Amino acid sequence: MLGGGSVGSQVASLLIQHRDELAARVGAGLELVGVAVRDLDAKRDTEIPRELLTTDAESLIRGADIVIELIGGIEPARSWILQALDSGADVITANKALLATHGPELFEAAERVGAQLYYEAAVGGAIPIIRPLRDSLAGDRVRRILGIVNGTTNYILDRMDTTGDPFQVALDEATRLGYAEADPTADIEGFDAAQKATILARLAFHTTVPLEKVHREGISAITADQVTSARKAGYVVKLLAICERLTDAATGVDGVSARVHPALVPRDHPLAAVHGANNAVFVEAEAAGSLMFYGAGAGGRETASAVLGDLVSAARRHVAGGPGVAESTHANLPVLPISSVITRYQITLTVVDEPGVLAAIATLFSDRGVSVEAVSQSVASGQEDSRPTASLVIVTHEASEEALASTVVDLDASAVVARVVSVLRVEGL
Amino acid sequence: MLGGGSVGSQVASLLIQHRDELAARVGAGLELVGVAVRDLDAKRDTEIPRELLTTDAESLIRGADIVIELIGGIEPARSWILQALDSGADVITANKALLATHGPELFEAAERVGAQLYYEAAVGGAIPIIRPLRDSLAGDRVRRILGIVNGTTNYILDRMDTTGDPFQVALDEATRLGYAEADPTADIEGFDAAQKATILARLAFHTTVPLEKVHREGISAITADQVTSARKAGYVVKLLAICERLTDAATGVDGVSARVHPALVPRDHPLAAVHGANNAVFVEAEAAGSLMFYGAGAGGRETASAVLGDLVSAARRHVAGGPGVAESTHANLPVLPISSVITRYQITLTVVDEPGVLAAIATLFSDRGVSVEAVSQSVASGQEDSRPTASLVIVTHEASEEALASTVVDLDASAVVARVVSVLRVEGL
Repeated sequence: MLGGGSVGSQVASLLIQHRDELAARVGAGLELVGVAVRDLDAKRDTEIPRELLTTDAESLIRGADIVIELIGGIEPARSWILQALDSGADVITANKALLATHGPELFEAAERVGAQLYYEAAVGGAIPIIRPLRDSLAGDRVRRILGIVNGTTNYILDRMDTTGDPFQVALDEATRLGYAEADPTADIEGFDAAQKATILARLAFHTTVPLEKVHREGISAITADQVTSARKAGYVVKLLAICERLTDAATGVDGVSARVHPALVPRDHPLAAVHGANNAVFVEAEAAGSLMFYGAGAGGRETASAVLGDLVSAARRHVAGGPGVAESTHANLPVLPISSVITRYQITLTVVDEPGVLAAIATLFSDRGVSVEAVSQSVASGQEDSRPTASLVIVTHEASEEALASTVVDLDASAVVARVVSVLRVEGL
Repeated sequence: MLGGGSVGSQVASLLIQHRDELAARVGAGLELVGVAVRDLDAKRDTEIPRELLTTDAESLIRGADIVIELIGGIEPARSWILQALDSGADVITANKALLATHGPELFEAAERVGAQLYYEAAVGGAIPIIRPLRDSLAGDRVRRILGIVNGTTNYILDRMDTTGDPFQVALDEATRLGYAEADPTADIEGFDAAQKATILARLAFHTTVPLEKVHREGISAITADQVTSARKAGYVVKLLAICERLTDAATGVDGVSARVHPALVPRDHPLAAVHGANNAVFVEAEAAGSLMFYGAGAGGRETASAVLGDLVSAARRHVAGGPGVAESTHANLPVLPISSVITRYQITLTVVDEPGVLAAIATLFSDRGVSVEAVSQSVASGQEDSRPTASLVIVTHEASEEALASTVVDLDASAVVARVVSVLRVEGL
């Protein structure tokens, strides 16, 4: 094992504690030969027997049948995994950043030598999602995946929804409880979710989706007002990683899209019931219909459960012989930009409160080919430039990102619009 | 393939439609060599090419690498599966009745020749639950499974909850919509759920749980009043298949228990949000914590998705060689009777409305060692034998089935109790 942090120390402890059961399930004993760490004396959540610790990762890798990589980050994780695969060892990793950026290189290295790369813990913590997508749905066609795959942002948005707290207060609370890191950027700006989106899209669509092609928006600009007005309209704001099959309306190109952004989810949808730091992945498949996988998305012990599941699979393969499942990107579909995406929008405007304004705004939408599904207007919302203003909430029918963007530019320039307060996507669910 | 009914015809149609994708995912072509049916001219949901149909199942089995059994029932399914396994073919089945009654015989036959028996479609239709339990959680310890594994009863109970309909009206509606069969006994009396409970318990606890040791109660006695009063108390009534690790308090024996009965589930629990004919399996594991798997529990096309997933797994194994995963019952734990189970109860009584009644009833509970958590009393509920009566709803702390049963006998015999209206288990969630 490489890494003795919160996940690593739990894996070590469970391996030792469950030794006999694991041997019975595998049909052979599993021996933890060593744990490579940077600092032999570091304080750990769970004690690892001192004689297992070493700082010499490369020697450890040379002697192992199975290597578990839990150090995270790109280097030296990448080099060590390649070394392990080249020597024919199976590798288990929870390293989403590495898979998102160097996945193809690692999968090719594994395939070359007939080794296997397992990564159930890389998405959704303890939730089994990799195996169901790769194996259980292997005979089906996945149409769309909507995932709450980042516990920190779900905690923050859930708290804003239940308490009415502004973003910063909810983030501070997440930090205090250990759900957010000292530098929360990777979580709140959607980088973590985007990495997971590439992994899910690859499995679901048998297509490599480069990280840089994942459209990404975080939640740091989400206001308490947006959350409250979503609630009143029967929605909840969630940060979603969305991967879907898509045909670009303009070019007719059939491809896939992956994007991460806050979206309005109807409150009676199963995804709306995912509270706190939990994760869930909602999958729509052609034959299976709608499926959801729900559970703890993080936590040392929870993630260790997924790592151990992979370990049993890898060990069974060592006992039984025979090659594993090659990662297939046979479909190799085009990855479409966010402008190809069709969705509904909720737009909140502060408008001048005078006769004819609604007609002017409606015309502005229809000029861009965006059809309005519903409008609700508050009686009065204040004053702007000594003119009385009202608040207008518009929900559109399905429209392209492109048409919507042009509409927002027009709204911003319109004399009757004091301010475009909020633009949020409404996912069709 | 054996059987060309609603699942079989969908499997055939998807196999033909997705031929190229499946070949790419497997790394080799899949050829549907034939479909054994009873009647070549039967009307089918989806057409199967006529030249594939045959009435000679045994010849078909002899020539196949993989046999898909979708005829259901015990015979001839059992003999045909044994014939297929003996000839070294991998077998895929959705036959929960057969697995529940002859599982050990089939798994042994498979192990003897190194063949594999796949049955993802036997529990929860399209929901991947077999593979997650067998593989993803293989390094963890499952503590408890609570499954909504029968769509018919969930539809009926959900309808009773949303409309206030009595049981018979909801059942009639389920029949009209095709969710219930002409003879609904297997569903509404919990036989179907009990079969699934044996399959889940075996996987989760590596222990054979004979069908006759599954405690089983159906939903035909659930009244509209029970559903309404559950709703008022913040619960919803669900038919659950519950499999758990358990220590018998009296004997200290550590074992497992499997039971099927209606139970009160808190309305904010994810299981309460499972509506209509959907299924969900909630799993509590030592390290992973709580997980839930949700989706369509039935339907020809949905179930076909699970069958095809198994088919791809079996085919990959044929291409790659090497043995599959042996079904392990290494733990072989004692199966404990329902009397060992500890749970909470909600008891609704009609009592004589006079001073001292509450004290008398409280004494009666404490004499049996059952501790009361909450009592609510309606002002008046009518008359019985010309005495005014009131309705009393009591929720107990955790108690054994045995202590509760004695308490109910005492309540029935008590002079101040006019009637024991309802006794329902409240699952700790």
